[in-house]
Amino acid sequence: MNYKNFPMVPRVVFGRGSFNQLNELISPKRLSINAPFIFLVDDVFRGNAWLTSRIPLAYDDRVIYISAKDEPKTSQVDSLVEEIILTSRQGTSGIIGIGGGTILDLAKAVAIMLTNEGEAKDYQGWDLVKNPAVYHVGIPTISGTGAEVSRTTVLTGPDMKLGINSDFTPFDQVILDPELTKGVQKNQWFYTGMDCYIHCIESLTGTYLNAFSQSYGEIALQLCKQVFLEDNLSDVDSQDKLMMASWHGGMSIAYSQVGVAHAISYGLSYLLGTKHGIGNCIVFDHLEEFYPEGVALFKEMKKKHDIYLPKGICAHLDDSKFDIMINISLSLEPLWENALGKGWKKIMTREKLKQLYKKM
Amino acid sequence: MNYKNFPMVPRVVFGRGSFNQLNELISPKRLSINAPFIFLVDDVFRGNAWLTSRIPLAYDDRVIYISAKDEPKTSQVDSLVEEIILTSRQGTSGIIGIGGGTILDLAKAVAIMLTNEGEAKDYQGWDLVKNPAVYHVGIPTISGTGAEVSRTTVLTGPDMKLGINSDFTPFDQVILDPELTKGVQKNQWFYTGMDCYIHCIESLTGTYLNAFSQSYGEIALQLCKQVFLEDNLSDVDSQDKLMMASWHGGMSIAYSQVGVAHAISYGLSYLLGTKHGIGNCIVFDHLEEFYPEGVALFKEMKKKHDIYLPKGICAHLDDSKFDIMINISLSLEPLWENALGKGWKKIMTREKLKQLYKKM
Repeated sequence: MNYKNFPMVPRVVFGRGSFNQLNELISPKRLSINAPFIFLVDDVFRGNAWLTSRIPLAYDDRVIYISAKDEPKTSQVDSLVEEIILTSRQGTSGIIGIGGGTILDLAKAVAIMLTNEGEAKDYQGWDLVKNPAVYHVGIPTISGTGAEVSRTTVLTGPDMKLGINSDFTPFDQVILDPELTKGVQKNQWFYTGMDCYIHCIESLTGTYLNAFSQSYGEIALQLCKQVFLEDNLSDVDSQDKLMMASWHGGMSIAYSQVGVAHAISYGLSYLLGTKHGIGNCIVFDHLEEFYPEGVALFKEMKKKHDIYLPKGICAHLDDSKFDIMINISLSLEPLWENALGKGWKKIMTREKLKQLYKKM
Repeated sequence: MNYKNFPMVPRVVFGRGSFNQLNELISPKRLSINAPFIFLVDDVFRGNAWLTSRIPLAYDDRVIYISAKDEPKTSQVDSLVEEIILTSRQGTSGIIGIGGGTILDLAKAVAIMLTNEGEAKDYQGWDLVKNPAVYHVGIPTISGTGAEVSRTTVLTGPDMKLGINSDFTPFDQVILDPELTKGVQKNQWFYTGMDCYIHCIESLTGTYLNAFSQSYGEIALQLCKQVFLEDNLSDVDSQDKLMMASWHGGMSIAYSQVGVAHAISYGLSYLLGTKHGIGNCIVFDHLEEFYPEGVALFKEMKKKHDIYLPKGICAHLDDSKFDIMINISLSLEPLWENALGKGWKKIMTREKLKQLYKKM
C-alpha cells in the first residue's frame, strides 16, 4: 500500500485583524517593481472601504474584482491568465485570492496556469501539473469550503467539473482572519457552512477513513454543531469557530474523500450551474438512506435557521439532460467508492440516481 | 496586534506501514553520491531488524544510534555536527530522525547547525537562526511530545534549558506510521502520552488561547481521553489515535503556549536531568491548585494504568540547588504569563515555587 505524501499549507496566520499583516507577509516575495501582485477579490467587496482600503497596492499591483455568482470555469481561468500576462511587464510576483471558495479556487488555478502551458482544462485531473505555480496567498472571507487548505481547485470545464489536483495547488500562505466573514449574508453563511458539515459526514462515514482524517473530521463536525445548533455562542466565537471548522474539514477530506452528496451535486453544477454550497444542501436533504444521522441533524439545522431550499430544480428536465448529470456524477468513481464501497455500482444504478435527481 | 506567521510541516504521510515509503520520499532529495543521508536512530532499535532493515542506506549514508536516556544537550548537537562534517565529503543530503522527542529534537538541531556557524547554545531562544537547515525528516516512534510538528527543538545548554525556536526548525517531511510505536514500554508510553495530555490542559486553560489552538487542543484532549480511559480500544486504534493526539497537541501549543507544569519541570530537567515526560508527570501530579479538573483526570489515568511516579526526588537538595531550579523555571516568562496572566509574579513567588519543588 502506498500512502499519499500530503502537502500542507506551509504558512498560516490566524487572528481577528490579521488581514492587516498582508503587506508585511507578501512584500519579501516581490520579484521586481515590474512584477505585480494581482489581487483577485470577490466583487461583493467592491466599494467596501473597510476591506479594500487595506489591500496593499504598490507599483503595478492590481485588484481584479470577480463575481462569485457562478461556479469557476476553466475558460475564466484562461481569460484571467491572458489578461494578467498581457499587463505584466516582468512576470507576476504573486496571486492573492480574497473571497470564498470560488475566488480561492480561481486564485489557485491562475497561479498554476501562469507557469504551465496550454489551457486550464488540460490539467483537470490528478497530478498533471508540471511546473510550480507562482506564489499564491489565500484569504477566505466566508467559511466552509476548505478551499483555503486543499490541494485541488475545482473547475467546470467544457467536458467535466473536476479539480486540478496537484502538489503545486495548495496556497503558499493562508491568512485566517475570521473578522472578514462578519458581513456574510445568512443564506450564504448557511450553504457554505454546510459544505463543511457535509464534507465531515461524507469523510467520517466513508470507507477511505483513517485515524488522520477522522481526527480532523471529528473536530470540524463538533465545531459545526456548536456554530449551527448552540444558542449561546457570540458572533465572534461563531465566526472564529466556523473558520476553524472549514480548515479542519478541508484537512479531513484531503486524506480521505467526499461522497454521495458531492458526487450528485457535481452533476447539478455541471448542467444547471448550481452553486456548490446550495447544490450540496439540495442534494444532502434527500440522502437519508445513505447518511441517516447526518441528514436528520442537517434538517434540524435548516429548521433552526429558517432556511428554505429551492425545490423542483430538475422538474423541467428531459431524459437527455438527466443522462448528462448521471454521466458526470457516476464518473466520479473515488467518491462513490468511498461512500458505498467497492460494490458501489450495484447500489447506485443509473435508474436509482435518476430517481434521486427527480426528487430535487 | 501582530499574529505569528506559523510554519507548518509542508509534507506529511500517514498510515501503518508508511515507513516503507522512506526511500521513495528521500531519494529525490539526494544532493550527490558523496553527500550522505544521516539517520539518527533511537538505540532501542539497535539490532531490531524489523525496523533497521527498512532504513534505506546507499553510498555513504550512515546510521548513528543515539540513547534517549538523557535529555538532548547542546554539546551533544555540536559533537554530532562535527562528526557528520568530518565524515561527509560533499555536505549532507539530509538528516532523518527516527525516535521519540529526544531524537527528533536532536535531528532538528543537527540539521540547523550543519548550515549555521558557531555552537548550538548560541541559537537557544527565538528566531536566532540565520540560514535554512539541511533537509530533515521526522519519524516518531513514540507518541506525545509533538516534536514532529513543532517549530522548536528543546535543548539543555550550559546556561539554560531552552528551545531553538525558528522558522527553519520544523521538519521538511514527517512520516506518521503508528505501527512503529507498537513496541513501546508501558511506563514510557504513559509518560510520553501524558506530555501531550498536559500540553492540552496547559494550552486550553491558558490566557494565550485562541480559536485556532483551541480546536487543535480539544481534539488532542479527546483522543488522549479515548486512549488512556476507554476500555474497548484495540491496540491498533490506540496507537493510531495517540499518534494523532501528539500531532494535534503539538499544533495547539504552536499557536499558544504551555504552562505551569512545563515551567516547573524544566527546572527538574536542568538540575537533575529528569526526562521531560516523567518530569512533567511528577510535577503535574501536584498542580491541583492550578489545573483542578486536569489533575483529577490525570490521577484517574495513572491509577487505571498502575503507574507509580518516583517520590522525593528533591528531598536531598539544599537551598542553593532549589535556587537553581527556581531561577530556570521563573525565567520562562511566557509560560507563566500564559498560565497565570500578566500578574503571575504575585502568584508564583520564589517561596511558593520552592514549596512545590519540596513536595516532589
